[in-house]
Amino acid sequence: MRSSVPSLRLPCSAAATQVSVFDTDDKPHEQCGVFGIIGDPDAAQMCYLGLHALQHRGQEGAGIVSSDGSALHSVTGLGLVSEVFSDASKLAPLVGSAAIGHNRYSTSGAASALANVQPFVAGYRFGQLAVAHNGNLVNYRSLRHELESKGSIFSTTSDTEVILHLIATSAARPLIARIVEACESLSGAFSLVFLTADKLIAVRDPHGFRPLVMGRRPNGAVVFASETSALDLISAEYVREVNPGEVIAVDVNDMLIATSYLLTRKPRKSCVFEHIYFSSPNSIIFGHPVHASRYNFGAALARESPAPGADIVIPVPDSGLFAALGFAGASGVPFKQGLIRSHYVGRSFIAPNQEERDLAVKLKLAPVEGILAGKSVVVIDDSIVRGTTSSKIVRLIKNEGKAREVHMRIACPPIVGSCYYGVDTPRAEELISNRLGVNELRQEIGCDSLGFLSLESMKGAFGEGRHMLCDACFTRKYPVTAPEPLAAEVGDEAED
Amino acid sequence: MRSSVPSLRLPCSAAATQVSVFDTDDKPHEQCGVFGIIGDPDAAQMCYLGLHALQHRGQEGAGIVSSDGSALHSVTGLGLVSEVFSDASKLAPLVGSAAIGHNRYSTSGAASALANVQPFVAGYRFGQLAVAHNGNLVNYRSLRHELESKGSIFSTTSDTEVILHLIATSAARPLIARIVEACESLSGAFSLVFLTADKLIAVRDPHGFRPLVMGRRPNGAVVFASETSALDLISAEYVREVNPGEVIAVDVNDMLIATSYLLTRKPRKSCVFEHIYFSSPNSIIFGHPVHASRYNFGAALARESPAPGADIVIPVPDSGLFAALGFAGASGVPFKQGLIRSHYVGRSFIAPNQEERDLAVKLKLAPVEGILAGKSVVVIDDSIVRGTTSSKIVRLIKNEGKAREVHMRIACPPIVGSCYYGVDTPRAEELISNRLGVNELRQEIGCDSLGFLSLESMKGAFGEGRHMLCDACFTRKYPVTAPEPLAAEVGDEAED
Amino acid sequence: MRSSVPSLRLPCSAAATQVSVFDTDDKPHEQCGVFGIIGDPDAAQMCYLGLHALQHRGQEGAGIVSSDGSALHSVTGLGLVSEVFSDASKLAPLVGSAAIGHNRYSTSGAASALANVQPFVAGYRFGQLAVAHNGNLVNYRSLRHELESKGSIFSTTSDTEVILHLIATSAARPLIARIVEACESLSGAFSLVFLTADKLIAVRDPHGFRPLVMGRRPNGAVVFASETSALDLISAEYVREVNPGEVIAVDVNDMLIATSYLLTRKPRKSCVFEHIYFSSPNSIIFGHPVHASRYNFGAALARESPAPGADIVIPVPDSGLFAALGFAGASGVPFKQGLIRSHYVGRSFIAPNQEERDLAVKLKLAPVEGILAGKSVVVIDDSIVRGTTSSKIVRLIKNEGKAREVHMRIACPPIVGSCYYGVDTPRAEELISNRLGVNELRQEIGCDSLGFLSLESMKGAFGEGRHMLCDACFTRKYPVTAPEPLAAEVGDEAED
Amino acid sequence: MRSSVPSLRLPCSAAATQVSVFDTDDKPHEQCGVFGIIGDPDAAQMCYLGLHALQHRGQEGAGIVSSDGSALHSVTGLGLVSEVFSDASKLAPLVGSAAIGHNRYSTSGAASALANVQPFVAGYRFGQLAVAHNGNLVNYRSLRHELESKGSIFSTTSDTEVILHLIATSAARPLIARIVEACESLSGAFSLVFLTADKLIAVRDPHGFRPLVMGRRPNGAVVFASETSALDLISAEYVREVNPGEVIAVDVNDMLIATSYLLTRKPRKSCVFEHIYFSSPNSIIFGHPVHASRYNFGAALARESPAPGADIVIPVPDSGLFAALGFAGASGVPFKQGLIRSHYVGRSFIAPNQEERDLAVKLKLAPVEGILAGKSVVVIDDSIVRGTTSSKIVRLIKNEGKAREVHMRIACPPIVGSCYYGVDTPRAEELISNRLGVNELRQEIGCDSLGFLSLESMKGAFGEGRHMLCDACFTRKYPVTAPEPLAAEVGDEAED
Repeated sequence: MRSSVPSLRLPCSAAATQVSVFDTDDKPHEQCGVFGIIGDPDAAQMCYLGLHALQHRGQEGAGIVSSDGSALHSVTGLGLVSEVFSDASKLAPLVGSAAIGHNRYSTSGAASALANVQPFVAGYRFGQLAVAHNGNLVNYRSLRHELESKGSIFSTTSDTEVILHLIATSAARPLIARIVEACESLSGAFSLVFLTADKLIAVRDPHGFRPLVMGRRPNGAVVFASETSALDLISAEYVREVNPGEVIAVDVNDMLIATSYLLTRKPRKSCVFEHIYFSSPNSIIFGHPVHASRYNFGAALARESPAPGADIVIPVPDSGLFAALGFAGASGVPFKQGLIRSHYVGRSFIAPNQEERDLAVKLKLAPVEGILAGKSVVVIDDSIVRGTTSSKIVRLIKNEGKAREVHMRIACPPIVGSCYYGVDTPRAEELISNRLGVNELRQEIGCDSLGFLSLESMKGAFGEGRHMLCDACFTRKYPVTAPEPLAAEVGDEAED
Repeated sequence: MRSSVPSLRLPCSAAATQVSVFDTDDKPHEQCGVFGIIGDPDAAQMCYLGLHALQHRGQEGAGIVSSDGSALHSVTGLGLVSEVFSDASKLAPLVGSAAIGHNRYSTSGAASALANVQPFVAGYRFGQLAVAHNGNLVNYRSLRHELESKGSIFSTTSDTEVILHLIATSAARPLIARIVEACESLSGAFSLVFLTADKLIAVRDPHGFRPLVMGRRPNGAVVFASETSALDLISAEYVREVNPGEVIAVDVNDMLIATSYLLTRKPRKSCVFEHIYFSSPNSIIFGHPVHASRYNFGAALARESPAPGADIVIPVPDSGLFAALGFAGASGVPFKQGLIRSHYVGRSFIAPNQEERDLAVKLKLAPVEGILAGKSVVVIDDSIVRGTTSSKIVRLIKNEGKAREVHMRIACPPIVGSCYYGVDTPRAEELISNRLGVNELRQEIGCDSLGFLSLESMKGAFGEGRHMLCDACFTRKYPVTAPEPLAAEVGDEAED
Repeated sequence: MRSSVPSLRLPCSAAATQVSVFDTDDKPHEQCGVFGIIGDPDAAQMCYLGLHALQHRGQEGAGIVSSDGSALHSVTGLGLVSEVFSDASKLAPLVGSAAIGHNRYSTSGAASALANVQPFVAGYRFGQLAVAHNGNLVNYRSLRHELESKGSIFSTTSDTEVILHLIATSAARPLIARIVEACESLSGAFSLVFLTADKLIAVRDPHGFRPLVMGRRPNGAVVFASETSALDLISAEYVREVNPGEVIAVDVNDMLIATSYLLTRKPRKSCVFEHIYFSSPNSIIFGHPVHASRYNFGAALARESPAPGADIVIPVPDSGLFAALGFAGASGVPFKQGLIRSHYVGRSFIAPNQEERDLAVKLKLAPVEGILAGKSVVVIDDSIVRGTTSSKIVRLIKNEGKAREVHMRIACPPIVGSCYYGVDTPRAEELISNRLGVNELRQEIGCDSLGFLSLESMKGAFGEGRHMLCDACFTRKYPVTAPEPLAAEVGDEAED
Repeated sequence: MRSSVPSLRLPCSAAATQVSVFDTDDKPHEQCGVFGIIGDPDAAQMCYLGLHALQHRGQEGAGIVSSDGSALHSVTGLGLVSEVFSDASKLAPLVGSAAIGHNRYSTSGAASALANVQPFVAGYRFGQLAVAHNGNLVNYRSLRHELESKGSIFSTTSDTEVILHLIATSAARPLIARIVEACESLSGAFSLVFLTADKLIAVRDPHGFRPLVMGRRPNGAVVFASETSALDLISAEYVREVNPGEVIAVDVNDMLIATSYLLTRKPRKSCVFEHIYFSSPNSIIFGHPVHASRYNFGAALARESPAPGADIVIPVPDSGLFAALGFAGASGVPFKQGLIRSHYVGRSFIAPNQEERDLAVKLKLAPVEGILAGKSVVVIDDSIVRGTTSSKIVRLIKNEGKAREVHMRIACPPIVGSCYYGVDTPRAEELISNRLGVNELRQEIGCDSLGFLSLESMKGAFGEGRHMLCDACFTRKYPVTAPEPLAAEVGDEAED
């Protein structure tokens, strides 16, 4: 799901002269989590809990659409799940035994549009249809161009809307055939859940870029979710992944499950960053437990890029934790918590006239001088994107924590390619590893040594299934052609 | 603009166990006011003021869309203009020299959907297109059915959305031709303003059901508005009505005005209720000053249905004021203000366990005992719809005001037909004059005498142009066939 | 109740670069309405309704305190009654059969402090005590100084707080004796209602500056209110005024009514502006119906200051209405509604770069050209304070309404004295009639003739009881010495 | 600061039928953090940052009062610092070079009263005085009784208000002498910061129950704060503790620092729970780094209560982290992160009809099956209060995490005494260790073994200064007599 054109119904944006603390986060960002459930008397409540368990995949907005068997009901809003559904009354309209939900990722600093919060609901000739999408369509512009040339109008700036149009313009019957026909046109990453009055349908793109799993609750309800963490929370058993290219439909009346596949077959290319950073450590993603991958990446990093003479290993919390434990376990260097992360800063601001240049980072991460002072410290981070934060962290550890040496170790390879499959990475020229070699980067960051995990080591550490991973951000080998040039703008047909 | 299907994106509605004071208003309700301006450096601010002047036409929501010459910007919200645009920062995003705005009418008691607040903005092959609509399309369902069968999807439940689809699916060029082609398909009432990146277009249906006027500001800006009151407020000169069937386009670059007409010609049928109740008394509607019509209706009523022996004439404020002055002027019975209207009650509630049955009316209207006590009182109201309020007013005047006699006079004929052209009237069976004759109604209301203005007298009082009026609500002679039966539901195509 | 020192707990105020429409109102402003009820199972609901009926006396804040027989419960907030009590759940905590309420007047443009919203509740040695106050204490500063010198601390900047301190420091018993002792110290205007766990007490200052009436509901509940309009709304019978200097206590257990009087006896000095402008036209104030006073003022004005050759008489709505009817009745010049008042503008803003200088007035008052054009118009306003609005109204009627002549008639004498008894009037030097004689003022306003009602005529028109009126704002004959010089600041004792 | 009497100005509370996630937290709760700064051009901004660093000490409300040298300015509100100060405009009114701030602790489930949010500001004979308080006065009731008997009125239900009254009723001069005199009367815990127009004063009770430190910014500004973490964030150097019984005053004009002491000398009794749970791990409290205490408590626990045969050690995050690292370090059992804590749940709710009994805990803590399955797991928690959560955590680890054995180790002794010095602990009968011995508790919790750290070991691990600790919650040896019996109610003097 992406949102590239200025939003149409944007609520007016405050002119932000203050610095948001969000801006200090130098991470790629997942774009959304999806959830669906059918056959549960508390479908909306289960959906609400599932979205809680997927909250880390998107914080800009959240929404739930339920079906009561004949009509859809929708509640969407900007903000966290706990803000959109601030009390039980917010769930009250969402009656029925089937529901889908969506967490939307927050584009830092940009004005947010309520109209772009999913699930989208549309009326068409066969009734109502709702959809929630995780991923990104690389052929969105050409699809939209084609649909517009046939007379379609668009009420959002999201690539997800083209999917609804493609289904609405399909002549195929029944619904599952329309969905297959529509999805055959899509290129890129899509893990989708659809809801109609009587059916829940899950679809995953042929490459299997983004995760999507299936589970079952003790009461027989069928669940789909981006991660197994959402299954665990509602005591649903993990059944299996939705396979790449698979379309699974469940009927609300008889709970029969119909499975089919998109014709297009593609090599599996599952996003390795789900294991590096995005997914919850307690999730099983692409069949592998995430915490184990991270631990193994850290251990491999210790072997490949050791820090001889180091006194302690500390993570950049929270994302570097498991890799730091792996590094400590493999190297024998003691693990310590040398940086304390505040979990309250959220939407704090810092006045622009603030003298302290590293204040935003300090507000989030507090160094523990008693642990760091005089030490040679290995700092484990999961990744470096723009490189804007690493130097601040090093200064924090050295100047405030009084560390003697800082050895930074990154539990993945240098990022050199933008992602076109549902991850918000900056443009290639903004990626620091495209501009600086490792040694230059070390100087820029100001640490005493710097090491990345090599691609080979990372895949080795991942183990079985290593060949199914998409590594385009490290290699620029894109499994699907990058998006058409921007020349093909939307709504661009020339008048006479 | 209408909203007949359950709303899709409805924010959850509080279960209302309390009685809203709004429910006490036994009036037909106008559905919306529209405004457009082009060629003004303060276009959005002028639009904001224009919507203030049209606030009486709709209080559920308000919105403005502006064009900066290349892109549209939108701010919409639920509530009054002063609530949606609560401070100047709310107008800040609305840059550019052209803008359109809309006031949405409040459906009493129903949950309101932000998605249904106009102006609507859509992207299509030629760029962005915004629209604001006053009126009601009688062939909405068949148009939507037809569009859906060709693959269109709908994101609102408003009839206005079909207009955007019709334009998007039109093959005609340039824009004005597409608009003409689209509007040729429409049946019913529509006063429309459109905005694109570089054009403002006003359209009025061939019958001219709803008002739409054109004006010009001293700086040359061209203005369209539902009523001349909006022109007055921003010191725009009233140029003329947009003619029935006329399409007027103004280009932002050269300010050239292009006028054309829909092919369909129809007899003029302008809504007489604009003069009876809806429009602001200081507006000129269909070329006639509203205050004068009302005064004349009251004077005609005095002649046709006098109240011999009455001591005073009082209006039901505020809408009965001018007719009461007319009645007093023609009859010589002194005009008094025997009922005081509170202007603060707005969204007040009354707890349901309230012992006082007439409390909601008392909260709004306070009788002045010193004026009413012991008197024979003529009470002038503009109309009776369901008849739910009149008896309460009579009780108020008799029991609390201690009046000796109450002679109710209504400044229009009995309402016997629902309106299909943009006025929210109850279904025919709920119209009290369909159930009770004048004498029965008098008994039900509890007044000592009751008189309506006859259709002939009303038209006579209106004077020149009387033949151009739509009087279907008094005669059930509908200029356009009533809507297709509800059997033709939207999104109703059967699956195999 | 006044609030002269910068508020302590002020919520941060938006830097207002926009012009509030409120600023266009050139009227003195009443400071508050009070209400109390005891012996009613729906005490809080009755209080809520009573505050609605008194809403015109203050719009800045509202609050209700109830007693359940052993403890007090409080809900207060900024804004209108319908905003503070936005749904029935807001009344839910206010259990018990006794309650008092307060409407707070809105100081235009100033930051409002929630801490200053009444009723105030305090704990002291005998339990809890709540108070609501209409009026102004002229010896507030010396009382506060004295209390502070004995160790009292103040949590508000309201003069009302000293009353609570005086009661708390009184050695007298029982409660009514403490209240009498405390109120003996007060100088100025005070209509008060107190609530304790088991008693409702009403007090009025010896001059009887501000109104306070007593009523009884059919169920036996005893009611106190600033105006009879609040009695009418809840079907309470008007019993009598609380007499000047009277203290009436009602016990919740036996409903016994105990009356006593302050020792101090003073000549009655009731505020004539209650009849000119403040009170609701349907209220009976100081035993006189307000609508009749206004009509008589207008009639006297017609005799004293006729406008020969005038075609029509129009009011400045809504406050000039009854005087205009009186003028029309006495002069024979026809009454017309030449200005339409918008009741939606409320908290609207106008961007400061607005070219139109009279826009704020136009937003509120719309001239009806068809009534005014070419006419010699008598315009009736109730009063002129700073004179800032009158010229705008004259321009509106002449330029936009196209009137030939405008003859302004003011239904009270020129205001030359600030009020120290609970009315918010500007300082003496800002009163236009202190700077300009009638003829100069006519030129400034731009009308063709200008006439004020003389004090003698006004009193004559008032009739019986004319000698009991406070007319200090017209004569500067203050019944109570003006407040001590500002030198005596609060919290001003010098440190060593 | 405590708030024991029903709040007077309580905003109406929603009847909560839903279960708050907050309820799952079985911890004692700190009551508030305080901050003060003087001599800084950005005083309010520094205060805002300081409150951020102290946010863990209280989340119910926050406030800042600044002085511009002649007047105080205040902004307070309910919620987190980032909610009360949601954008930079909220700080705008807080001008001046001195400021104090306060974080208020959230009483779970209770209605919160804005009136009780500190700093409190009062006017008294010498001007304005503001105060922020961390701690609890055990003689609040008798002080309030005494003050009320002399005529004081109370506008809050907080013990802090008596301090202001005591200062106001003091005859001493200058200010510092009044503060000393007032504080001599206080019994219990108080770390206080006061602000007047020209002075910042910090006071700590003679026992030194709660922490309070002094620091200095590079620009010379003097800072007081509950914890050194607040100094670190604003780059203030840690100077020293405010000594028990010390009063430090700083003048805004000359920045001179005057120190004096309360006459009463008491043995030092500093709250050991600051080290066990409350304070930030990167703070230095009572001269000891908190992270080191916790590590040492964990190491001592491993020695005293080992878990032979255990496979892994995991913390209950986040508070058990350092103790778990200490346990792992001392025992050689590997440290793992077997529970993942969600940092988004905040104000989430769970519908009451939820079948899952342990859901609230699961929403906050997710077990990592891949780490726990089949293992013998040592779980380190910092403390057990009611014992309501421990059994849920054990079930989580066993049932969902599939652990073979769970050995719970608590890094402090059993809690058997309520705290009267500023910590919110339940009444003695609700403390599980008062009802169950260790073995019974083990059965109740359902773990395979249970061990607490003994008091001796804890003090031994604390090292130097062990004798200065208050351990009343473990020993019921209260350094200050427990509060007077509740019989002495406030506002309780009998009427005749």
